[in-house]
Amino acid sequence: MIVVMSRRADEDKINAVLERLKKAGFQIHLSRGVERTIIGAIGDKTRMGDLALEAMPGVENVVPILQPYKLASRAFKEQDTVVKVGDLEIGGKQIHVMAGPCAVESREQLLESAEMVKAAGATLLRGGAFKPRTSPYSFQGLEEKGLQYLAEAREKTGLKIVTEVMDAGTLPLVAEYADILQIGTRNMQNFFLLREVAKVDKPVLLKRGASATIEEWLMAAEYIMAGGNYNVILCERGIRTYETFTRNTLDLSAVPVVKHLSHLPVIVDPSHAIGKWRFVPPMAVAAVAAGADGLLIEVHPNPSEALCDGPQSLTPENFQSLMKDVRAVAEAIGRRL
Amino acid sequence: MIVVMSRRADEDKINAVLERLKKAGFQIHLSRGVERTIIGAIGDKTRMGDLALEAMPGVENVVPILQPYKLASRAFKEQDTVVKVGDLEIGGKQIHVMAGPCAVESREQLLESAEMVKAAGATLLRGGAFKPRTSPYSFQGLEEKGLQYLAEAREKTGLKIVTEVMDAGTLPLVAEYADILQIGTRNMQNFFLLREVAKVDKPVLLKRGASATIEEWLMAAEYIMAGGNYNVILCERGIRTYETFTRNTLDLSAVPVVKHLSHLPVIVDPSHAIGKWRFVPPMAVAAVAAGADGLLIEVHPNPSEALCDGPQSLTPENFQSLMKDVRAVAEAIGRRL
Amino acid sequence: MIVVMSRRADEDKINAVLERLKKAGFQIHLSRGVERTIIGAIGDKTRMGDLALEAMPGVENVVPILQPYKLASRAFKEQDTVVKVGDLEIGGKQIHVMAGPCAVESREQLLESAEMVKAAGATLLRGGAFKPRTSPYSFQGLEEKGLQYLAEAREKTGLKIVTEVMDAGTLPLVAEYADILQIGTRNMQNFFLLREVAKVDKPVLLKRGASATIEEWLMAAEYIMAGGNYNVILCERGIRTYETFTRNTLDLSAVPVVKHLSHLPVIVDPSHAIGKWRFVPPMAVAAVAAGADGLLIEVHPNPSEALCDGPQSLTPENFQSLMKDVRAVAEAIGRRL
Amino acid sequence: MIVVMSRRADEDKINAVLERLKKAGFQIHLSRGVERTIIGAIGDKTRMGDLALEAMPGVENVVPILQPYKLASRAFKEQDTVVKVGDLEIGGKQIHVMAGPCAVESREQLLESAEMVKAAGATLLRGGAFKPRTSPYSFQGLEEKGLQYLAEAREKTGLKIVTEVMDAGTLPLVAEYADILQIGTRNMQNFFLLREVAKVDKPVLLKRGASATIEEWLMAAEYIMAGGNYNVILCERGIRTYETFTRNTLDLSAVPVVKHLSHLPVIVDPSHAIGKWRFVPPMAVAAVAAGADGLLIEVHPNPSEALCDGPQSLTPENFQSLMKDVRAVAEAIGRRL
Repeated sequence: MIVVMSRRADEDKINAVLERLKKAGFQIHLSRGVERTIIGAIGDKTRMGDLALEAMPGVENVVPILQPYKLASRAFKEQDTVVKVGDLEIGGKQIHVMAGPCAVESREQLLESAEMVKAAGATLLRGGAFKPRTSPYSFQGLEEKGLQYLAEAREKTGLKIVTEVMDAGTLPLVAEYADILQIGTRNMQNFFLLREVAKVDKPVLLKRGASATIEEWLMAAEYIMAGGNYNVILCERGIRTYETFTRNTLDLSAVPVVKHLSHLPVIVDPSHAIGKWRFVPPMAVAAVAAGADGLLIEVHPNPSEALCDGPQSLTPENFQSLMKDVRAVAEAIGRRL
Repeated sequence: MIVVMSRRADEDKINAVLERLKKAGFQIHLSRGVERTIIGAIGDKTRMGDLALEAMPGVENVVPILQPYKLASRAFKEQDTVVKVGDLEIGGKQIHVMAGPCAVESREQLLESAEMVKAAGATLLRGGAFKPRTSPYSFQGLEEKGLQYLAEAREKTGLKIVTEVMDAGTLPLVAEYADILQIGTRNMQNFFLLREVAKVDKPVLLKRGASATIEEWLMAAEYIMAGGNYNVILCERGIRTYETFTRNTLDLSAVPVVKHLSHLPVIVDPSHAIGKWRFVPPMAVAAVAAGADGLLIEVHPNPSEALCDGPQSLTPENFQSLMKDVRAVAEAIGRRL
Repeated sequence: MIVVMSRRADEDKINAVLERLKKAGFQIHLSRGVERTIIGAIGDKTRMGDLALEAMPGVENVVPILQPYKLASRAFKEQDTVVKVGDLEIGGKQIHVMAGPCAVESREQLLESAEMVKAAGATLLRGGAFKPRTSPYSFQGLEEKGLQYLAEAREKTGLKIVTEVMDAGTLPLVAEYADILQIGTRNMQNFFLLREVAKVDKPVLLKRGASATIEEWLMAAEYIMAGGNYNVILCERGIRTYETFTRNTLDLSAVPVVKHLSHLPVIVDPSHAIGKWRFVPPMAVAAVAAGADGLLIEVHPNPSEALCDGPQSLTPENFQSLMKDVRAVAEAIGRRL
Repeated sequence: MIVVMSRRADEDKINAVLERLKKAGFQIHLSRGVERTIIGAIGDKTRMGDLALEAMPGVENVVPILQPYKLASRAFKEQDTVVKVGDLEIGGKQIHVMAGPCAVESREQLLESAEMVKAAGATLLRGGAFKPRTSPYSFQGLEEKGLQYLAEAREKTGLKIVTEVMDAGTLPLVAEYADILQIGTRNMQNFFLLREVAKVDKPVLLKRGASATIEEWLMAAEYIMAGGNYNVILCERGIRTYETFTRNTLDLSAVPVVKHLSHLPVIVDPSHAIGKWRFVPPMAVAAVAAGADGLLIEVHPNPSEALCDGPQSLTPENFQSLMKDVRAVAEAIGRRL
């Protein structure tokens, strides 16, 4: 880290900063320029946050040089992490598509969805039993009943199950049924929940918060890994910007960036990012071209009857067509579906 | 709400939309123009979200006209809500300052802070016992010990206590000690937690999420109110923008806007919004000028030793000076401290 | 457009609004609900901006229903516009790559760049003779000398030339040399300049402003088209968001969205969006997968000696590799390079 | 500046960076850590942009330490700049209010506005003769006729005139009439125009671009100052964020921040930031409380008949009431109107 002292910081103030850095075990390099004195400090990057240097008299600015995460970083592990979900490998050469309805609405709706997405080539089934909804008056999910339907669909189709856990209190219940525990975008910095999923022996799908920087997203992964669970799959799902035509702005450049900074697999959810089904297929294909390891796609047997996120759900026909295009592009870049 | 049909939507598609709206109890007004058919629908605004109209064939766009919240709206209650915290009234003529350290670090630190902010004119003491931290390696709070120190400070000074609750699991513990339950910015859409604080008989301080619209913020208040707890105090604390010089961008215009849309009291936290102590005093004064009912200010006996948020914490001297300026401006606009 | 009256607007206020709408030739539909009176108005969408309805007493909100642009809209022209640049067709089946250095620095640098990008498959040469630079102390371009080198490169290679025009005063000079006139991101709403390029018989490459909505971008195209120049090529080049790891956030979903709303061709500039050469190739490939009609790529014979934008410029080797991947994906989706 | 080398950068790559820095006259400090080699470089900050260090092999990141502007910085000039406009002093103890209609629409409208804002205490008259409009179909201003009316209003009332210049071509004309040349938000980075106003002997009011950082805004001021015109007044007018209830988000914290970083005076335009007249008065008062040296307020004799920006224009009555509140708060913080 670099500590920039203000123009008029005197020797006492500079020495106080040096003292604190040395006490914390940092190695020091001092540069006295005409305009400023600058202190370089090299040491344990996970300790920097607690030093409160910016609050010391005479300090103008503190510039971190290294990323604050460690276990999630490419420096910590050079090779790509491959997360195993049963016999599926996420982060390998094969691209995995997780598809299904936003919410589990009924046994019929879910089983029909499962058969359909499996036939089209999906390997995992998504579906929410606990639903975070903006309005308290909206459908909030079937809860345990929904989890049971998901399990039944798994049994019938062999698809693995990815479903959201919203709260530490219901984590044991959800973990009993899920193959992958999804942390939703609004919970990316629910640190209590991150600490709890860290203790469970299941892969975690960590959605990026709608206004989270890539660094904060990797810090959330770090929480889970620091707690002992290394099977984290990152999911880009759009960030909040000033553009209102789309629900959010899909930040596809996050895919190659995360793959550069981290060894963790990354998938993309174009459905929530765009919010309009019409634009989901081209963005799904673009995600694969950008290097994503998988996709999370909302599909519904009848989107206009969906209790949740109908406007962004694909019909079975549109999903089949999307899968064909995804396959063609995957092969063009040397991967497979 | 207004449903805009696409240019080529035929009669069958228009009728299907009309059918669904009528079944849901909406009153319909149909306008056939040269370019588009437009359907106006008037009815229960809390039901709109579940209609999935945008997913129906032939629908181009759905434009909500009324706000989706009800209990939180000015239309529901014309008069300003005054939240009582013991004998304090938040939302009345008096401006209340809630001050103290980011985190409870020790008994001494907290008691010293409490005496000091009280002497300067604060009426509530803030301090975190459970701390949401971006890094898993940072200080996470003293937990119950911290709550006990807060209670002791209350006893000694008479200040009321505002402290954060991070999770439904620890809510009963926090509620035992707190006078006001703070919902942090990262939990504004933790709907499990909102539903739980709704059941507790304590005022709730609801911080705006860092990328929440004013409407989403009021929807979060609606969750708490729909669950039975009407004592909600809103807190603007900065939103995430592209500007990086300040930690966030303090959206002071949210103060008069919320007071127009809602009857709930609004306070402002300039410390977290700005992230640099030097700019906190002018923004605290500006917040009062903009109409805020109170302030949440981070103060620390020794900011450069703080375990959390030192760079944005005021020294006792700077806090006293801020209070003097706040008082002058409050009186200039016909309020008092 | 929909005019929402406030709860307490009386008959006089409602009538005043109806009067003004009728006088402006709008067709009216009145809906009186329990909570609100809502007025639907159908008519010339290009006149709405001048009605100032929101300033009338009793008006709470005005919601536009149709897009405010006309000539640029898909409704005005169903078929894709193909812009001809000599014998090149932009917006057809073939994907065109415009490549070259950020700035023309010298005759040698430019000719070397031109030969190289041509050999790799580019059909147009980019290079700035007038450079908009954030700092007044940075290299500002070779001006007319630069234009002459571009013309020489065109003669030698047959590549068409795309170069930026920054000001109405220098437009005649730039138009003398350019095959495509580029309007830079900072000038997207320089309406004087838009009105002037509208009068020139050359295609215009209109970059999206860094904080422009898709609607504002199409309104800027409308300025050029309303002035008589229908040969507008849109260029997505990243929008400003809170994420700082990349220079801007490439909004690839704008590609299918613009193709839905408008008939104009769209190309993508990943170099400026990302700002780091390493991430340009995957995003170029993703842009093609998303449906872009072309790419604008910064290439430099020696990026680390570039006078401008070196960090985001590709080396010749990296550019050749990118072209190979672009070709494979283009063919996978039924297009060609 | 700090150059962070990548983990595997070898001696040759490090030496190449050192060479380039030394050749450019920078003083070097080398720190070799376990994870990284870090190079500190101290020298002429205005030359850093041209070094292209980030494009050199082995360089991971370049972190600037000092601001890239010089003449605009507080370090260059400790004392506040006071800009004189005739006998008015902007940036001194007195707060100046510049008020008037968005556009000059007619002689009567302007003269009436001028008399009215003068009576209420304004010292400058605003009004656009050339109007930048999002739509090509909207009223674009009276041009020279409008300037003549402004001159007449000045003669009649003694108010100084602030009006926008949109283009280098019309600058001589506008400069003939204006007392202060306004650079609009869309032209903040129109570098041709900045270079031209730098040559004119008139104060310049430089509005912040809607997505400009504070640093970019000060760099735009630097353009004007580097060209020889030191009389720059900065104007905060709202930045673009994801919040849509207000037209933009007024970044009031920019006021104390700019006053810390620069010696230039800062005024605030709440009308354009908010876009709804109802919220303009509280934000005007808050701006003064935050330390603004003046205000730019849209007032119209009859907002609902305005040809431009009616929804955000105050009536004469509301403006008088605003002025009363501004005066009270100005005095409470030791300034005057």
